[in-house]
Amino acid sequence: MRNVSIIGTGLLKFGKYPDIALADLGWPAVKQAISDAGIQPGDIDALFCGTGLGGPMPGQRILGRLGMAGIPIINVENACSSGSSALNLGQMAIASGRHDIVMVIGVEKLTKFNGGPIPLEKEDWEVNNGLVMPALYAMRARRYMHEFGLTKEQLASVVVKSRRHAALNPDAQLQAETTVEEVLGSRMIADPFTLYQCCPTGDGAAVLILCAEELARKYTDKPVRVAASHIVSGEFVGGFRDMTSPDITVRCAQQTYEEAGIGPEDVDVAEVHDAFTSAELMYYEAFGFCERGEAIRLLESGDSSLGGKIPVNPSGGLLSKGHPVAVTGAAQVVEVVRQLQGRCGKRQVEGAKVGLTHATGGGISGFDHGVCAIHIFTV
Amino acid sequence: MRNVSIIGTGLLKFGKYPDIALADLGWPAVKQAISDAGIQPGDIDALFCGTGLGGPMPGQRILGRLGMAGIPIINVENACSSGSSALNLGQMAIASGRHDIVMVIGVEKLTKFNGGPIPLEKEDWEVNNGLVMPALYAMRARRYMHEFGLTKEQLASVVVKSRRHAALNPDAQLQAETTVEEVLGSRMIADPFTLYQCCPTGDGAAVLILCAEELARKYTDKPVRVAASHIVSGEFVGGFRDMTSPDITVRCAQQTYEEAGIGPEDVDVAEVHDAFTSAELMYYEAFGFCERGEAIRLLESGDSSLGGKIPVNPSGGLLSKGHPVAVTGAAQVVEVVRQLQGRCGKRQVEGAKVGLTHATGGGISGFDHGVCAIHIFTV
Repeated sequence: MRNVSIIGTGLLKFGKYPDIALADLGWPAVKQAISDAGIQPGDIDALFCGTGLGGPMPGQRILGRLGMAGIPIINVENACSSGSSALNLGQMAIASGRHDIVMVIGVEKLTKFNGGPIPLEKEDWEVNNGLVMPALYAMRARRYMHEFGLTKEQLASVVVKSRRHAALNPDAQLQAETTVEEVLGSRMIADPFTLYQCCPTGDGAAVLILCAEELARKYTDKPVRVAASHIVSGEFVGGFRDMTSPDITVRCAQQTYEEAGIGPEDVDVAEVHDAFTSAELMYYEAFGFCERGEAIRLLESGDSSLGGKIPVNPSGGLLSKGHPVAVTGAAQVVEVVRQLQGRCGKRQVEGAKVGLTHATGGGISGFDHGVCAIHIFTV
Repeated sequence: MRNVSIIGTGLLKFGKYPDIALADLGWPAVKQAISDAGIQPGDIDALFCGTGLGGPMPGQRILGRLGMAGIPIINVENACSSGSSALNLGQMAIASGRHDIVMVIGVEKLTKFNGGPIPLEKEDWEVNNGLVMPALYAMRARRYMHEFGLTKEQLASVVVKSRRHAALNPDAQLQAETTVEEVLGSRMIADPFTLYQCCPTGDGAAVLILCAEELARKYTDKPVRVAASHIVSGEFVGGFRDMTSPDITVRCAQQTYEEAGIGPEDVDVAEVHDAFTSAELMYYEAFGFCERGEAIRLLESGDSSLGGKIPVNPSGGLLSKGHPVAVTGAAQVVEVVRQLQGRCGKRQVEGAKVGLTHATGGGISGFDHGVCAIHIFTV
């Protein structure tokens, strides 16, 4: 199979855009990515478009606005990993030789629910009985605190680090720095999570232009290689192997490292799925950035912050940048690609050569048969 | 790229199953397909699951019921072509070398709308102003009648032929034979379409097991080759090149014939997207089974019926078998694969070696930037 590069990126800053149609959320980021890649619209062979809750045919809607329809378009739904699942398909489409240049979009409009929660699926009996995402993550966080002696102040400090990064990212939804006291003083959502410890929702779009590596330098002098693209689904129905370890991510990470031929010690920058504070800590361990139970030590050492050994979520992550379901997986890639291209200004991870993105979600009917998608990029 | 075969098929007869969850609609067809392929569940490397309106993560729900989750699962939405788009991805996943054995599912539960219409998308202003599917097809049918002198009796005769085929298909929703008088006597939906001239909706599931051709004979002595798999989107916003010719299908058909290296004269059996009577006639012409304006002559000659030169919709098609959006594209493939395997009993097309399937839809925001997916199969 051929190697695949990312040659262009586009992003619509996450936010609340209740009066803008989904298609109109998408096309500005498409134009930005095309311009960034230095290609013409007609160079694009196919589109893979990820949306979680955007309704039918988002890809056709967006390209229709630009007069770019006609090409093969496939829309992908994989909950919080919809955007990264679309990337997984785009990578395959080029690696296989079917296409040379492919566009990937993640797009979402959560304001269509008028500020209310994302509608529940009637078939999810656990969710209908109260085990919604904040409750599920909270239960696991509580167990982690019990097992490893993590305090609520330490948990809150994840947000402090997140906002410190976000303050350097003009595309973050929440850019104001904060303190442990302020985080703990925000209103309680699901004990131990106060409001600031839950990622904000929003609308947004992120776009990637993929190209066969052998052609990439025709368009850009800064192509970024997709060194590994991996997806798994959860194995367990009705429980976990261990509530304090995200099994689906552990398994997917091992397989993705193997595919890329690298280990955690090689990663220079990572964007992980910090939907709630506890998640970021568990993912430090799942990715092998530290030992089990040692995540808070890693955070407190500064090594997961900008300037540290393995900066995690330099963009501010889901906690500060926001989490428009399907967009997250693609937007993480926008950040990591720009980091590897050395284009991230004040939040640049100096000399970054290897980056990792991680989007996981859709814990339905028994907690863990959702999806996890991990990508590794190199320059 | 490697050749790909279909080695197993499964189908849940379309119907109204309001009390059955989507996941439970899906798994019986999965078990049937696995058994038909002669593989073990653990042999499956990945799942591509198509649904139009089934909600989040249908693939994970279905495999979760069977304890088969863990593998990569990607859910696909492409309106009426969701199931065939999933097949397009499954084919690519094997052709590329990423996987050896892949499952494809089309699943849908339209009874969840309690007998009402499929909810409209607020962003589709044409649809919200009355240009729903029956109205759109009716307008085009009227123009075709005007251009080519087709009578309403002739249009109705498409249903007579459809039910004659369906009477031989135990999996068809509507199996009773009918007459032109009866068709025209059913209540008016959108002039010229009476009720019988519109496909019934329903719930259902269809499953395909795909395998690298070089491995297929390990499992079955009747593998069916995917000779071409092609998808395009519509090019026009706000109009048609010609209302009496489905441009998106004409374009996709030309490209698919080219990919397979065959022409219309080589096709032994076809399942086309006869959502309304007029559609079947227009598709005879779009696929080159006859000249423009000659479709009714082809029908009246008996050549598009069982026993004729190019039997179209031996299953009864959408008009009699039903049309659970995402399932249709996959269910057409179930029919054609079984035809090429010589397993269709009273509706068998004798000696069929080349088959074609065609699913198209999603005419949104300007009629024609939906999707068309065409597959050609050979033995």
